[in-house]
Amino acid sequence: MAEWLGTFSLLATVIGSGIMADRLSGGNVAIALLGNTIPTGAILVVLILVFGPISGAHFNPAVTLAFALRKDISKTTSILYVVVQVFGAISGVLIAHVMFDNALIDPSTTIRAGLGQWVGEFVATFGLIGTVLGCLKSRPEAIPYAVGLYITAAYWFTSSTSFANPAVTIARGFSDTFAGIHPASVAAFVAVQLLAALLATFFFKWLLKDA
Amino acid sequence: MAEWLGTFSLLATVIGSGIMADRLSGGNVAIALLGNTIPTGAILVVLILVFGPISGAHFNPAVTLAFALRKDISKTTSILYVVVQVFGAISGVLIAHVMFDNALIDPSTTIRAGLGQWVGEFVATFGLIGTVLGCLKSRPEAIPYAVGLYITAAYWFTSSTSFANPAVTIARGFSDTFAGIHPASVAAFVAVQLLAALLATFFFKWLLKDA
Amino acid sequence: MAEWLGTFSLLATVIGSGIMADRLSGGNVAIALLGNTIPTGAILVVLILVFGPISGAHFNPAVTLAFALRKDISKTTSILYVVVQVFGAISGVLIAHVMFDNALIDPSTTIRAGLGQWVGEFVATFGLIGTVLGCLKSRPEAIPYAVGLYITAAYWFTSSTSFANPAVTIARGFSDTFAGIHPASVAAFVAVQLLAALLATFFFKWLLKDA
Amino acid sequence: MAEWLGTFSLLATVIGSGIMADRLSGGNVAIALLGNTIPTGAILVVLILVFGPISGAHFNPAVTLAFALRKDISKTTSILYVVVQVFGAISGVLIAHVMFDNALIDPSTTIRAGLGQWVGEFVATFGLIGTVLGCLKSRPEAIPYAVGLYITAAYWFTSSTSFANPAVTIARGFSDTFAGIHPASVAAFVAVQLLAALLATFFFKWLLKDA
Repeated sequence: MAEWLGTFSLLATVIGSGIMADRLSGGNVAIALLGNTIPTGAILVVLILVFGPISGAHFNPAVTLAFALRKDISKTTSILYVVVQVFGAISGVLIAHVMFDNALIDPSTTIRAGLGQWVGEFVATFGLIGTVLGCLKSRPEAIPYAVGLYITAAYWFTSSTSFANPAVTIARGFSDTFAGIHPASVAAFVAVQLLAALLATFFFKWLLKDA
Repeated sequence: MAEWLGTFSLLATVIGSGIMADRLSGGNVAIALLGNTIPTGAILVVLILVFGPISGAHFNPAVTLAFALRKDISKTTSILYVVVQVFGAISGVLIAHVMFDNALIDPSTTIRAGLGQWVGEFVATFGLIGTVLGCLKSRPEAIPYAVGLYITAAYWFTSSTSFANPAVTIARGFSDTFAGIHPASVAAFVAVQLLAALLATFFFKWLLKDA
Repeated sequence: MAEWLGTFSLLATVIGSGIMADRLSGGNVAIALLGNTIPTGAILVVLILVFGPISGAHFNPAVTLAFALRKDISKTTSILYVVVQVFGAISGVLIAHVMFDNALIDPSTTIRAGLGQWVGEFVATFGLIGTVLGCLKSRPEAIPYAVGLYITAAYWFTSSTSFANPAVTIARGFSDTFAGIHPASVAAFVAVQLLAALLATFFFKWLLKDA
Repeated sequence: MAEWLGTFSLLATVIGSGIMADRLSGGNVAIALLGNTIPTGAILVVLILVFGPISGAHFNPAVTLAFALRKDISKTTSILYVVVQVFGAISGVLIAHVMFDNALIDPSTTIRAGLGQWVGEFVATFGLIGTVLGCLKSRPEAIPYAVGLYITAAYWFTSSTSFANPAVTIARGFSDTFAGIHPASVAAFVAVQLLAALLATFFFKWLLKDA
């Protein structure tokens, strides 16, 4: 339930603030991205503070994969988590569309592809897993702030504006708004994200073993 | 007294920064909203840090309702709190008007209504109560930061820019500036906010009972 | 020394970021104010973290007055603090002028006066003292963040953009840049600030006595 | 390895967000700088949280020099750190160029020189070392936040936008984008930064000895 509600809230924020920022920005995309970045980073801190003690606050199949590989959660639980995250994310898109009087289902026409963007997604997801695992080792109480700040940065340092989350990527396929992604671009993004999560889990296991 | 001063300061900030941001933004509403969001989120952190140990730092009848339903405060105290919050909020609007040489009482002409905005207010208030109750359970010392960040996000992810507070809503009826709301739109907003607070209190009581 | 260096750094930031933001903003004053607000709030957190354990990190005659009234520091020390703060502030202006190739001494031509602005300075200083004294009582470790966030908000919710500091006000008289103030407007600002500090000290002593 | 990855990530962020912000800003340099500042400050907090317990999270030859002067790390380790930092920084530039489909090696044409900018680099580096050493003494757990906030401020209060880091300065020579610096301007910047680090180390040793 916490995973559903968290992913739901995350997407409501990503899509909702994307629509708001885009509508108000007068065509200046940097201002629109600021108005999308700040709320997304802020709500992540809040969601992880609130739902962390309940579900672990993954909200992200890439994060769930990392914890499953580390055997911190069982295979069954992790599959359940991923299903719930995808449905939570899609329902978050729907509520944002209701709030902003947008068509409920509105497939995105924004193609996001190419080597630069895929490298961006790899870097973004690798870094996100590293942020979570690194803080978990030494400063677990800082995770909410670290993840919020990480995504704040990643929106800007990758050419894809850092989806870094398969559930979020799938859900954003249903929204032809600022934060949308063409459904045909989704599969490659998800594949790169999962690959990055896999490699990051092993890499940081090695890097952090003596820390 | 703390509730009065806190709600007073909150409204002085909401209205004051709204006027400032609107006047300086050169017509770019996204920039104006940034200049309204950042000060509001920042002052909420400060006010809850300062007044939390004195009054609990509700500043919001929806929050007071939640604590009254949980029997954390008595019925009499909660009614007193709500009255003080409404007067605090209105006096905050007045001081902002004095600071910016605006007419003292200046009823807003900004109509805010419709299913999208009401759903937005429901989501915003539900989330605010969840933020407060969730952090209260597991990380009470993080509440000031969580609430400030939550409102920072909610200003952008709802089509109504998240009033999420009946006292604030009533007071903003008196200000025909950036953050105002037409007095005729107030009642529906307040009704939705209280309904959301009621449901959120019971929902999070259930969700958090094992956390 | 810490008071000198802190006030020096504060003014270097206020004036420097004001010049930078103003030059780059393309005439949009809201963007310029954002570019002035964010650095000022950020550096205040840092300066109070670093110099707090050394000098108490006042950087502000209004704050020193409050602590002198509470007899937390002696009369002699407080006079010394104020003198050092004023010289620190002026030298901060000079270094900012050097960094931005501005004339060293460059009296401001920006008149800042009128009931609205004086009320604004009263509110801003009163709130600053309340922030410091309130956090000192219950959450002293949060003071650096609270003061940084308070000033972030206050830049926007007052019509004067919150000087709230006599040393800063005097020094900004020497800079005909974004953050400057006409020397003829200084005395009234300083008087209002000291009055607000005086009243705030007694008010919060009473308010916080049972907290 | 942690120093390499940290400096790599830092530069990926500085260069990547610089390109992103510049492309989207519609020519408003203040907005571009905001979009460069916020991600840089945010990622610094994250990187220091994650890598601090592993390598100390210097990411900066000026910081390594300070710790070597204090004999906190050996001469050999510090030389190794600096080499790794420079290569980490350059590889960070390369990955940003890949992500944004820029030429891999693309020497900057932005000349940055003159007394104002050199004084700016001196002030920025001096302050950075002071931030690190000051917090280390009294609030070591706050260092990640303090450094992130310091750089956030320093981007705006210096005319050079605060490089304050020799490895970063060298690497930014390879990028003809928003955050680049002409290779001919690098040596003077690095010299000033090292001088500032040297003087700051002794100054803060003296200042903090009784704190």
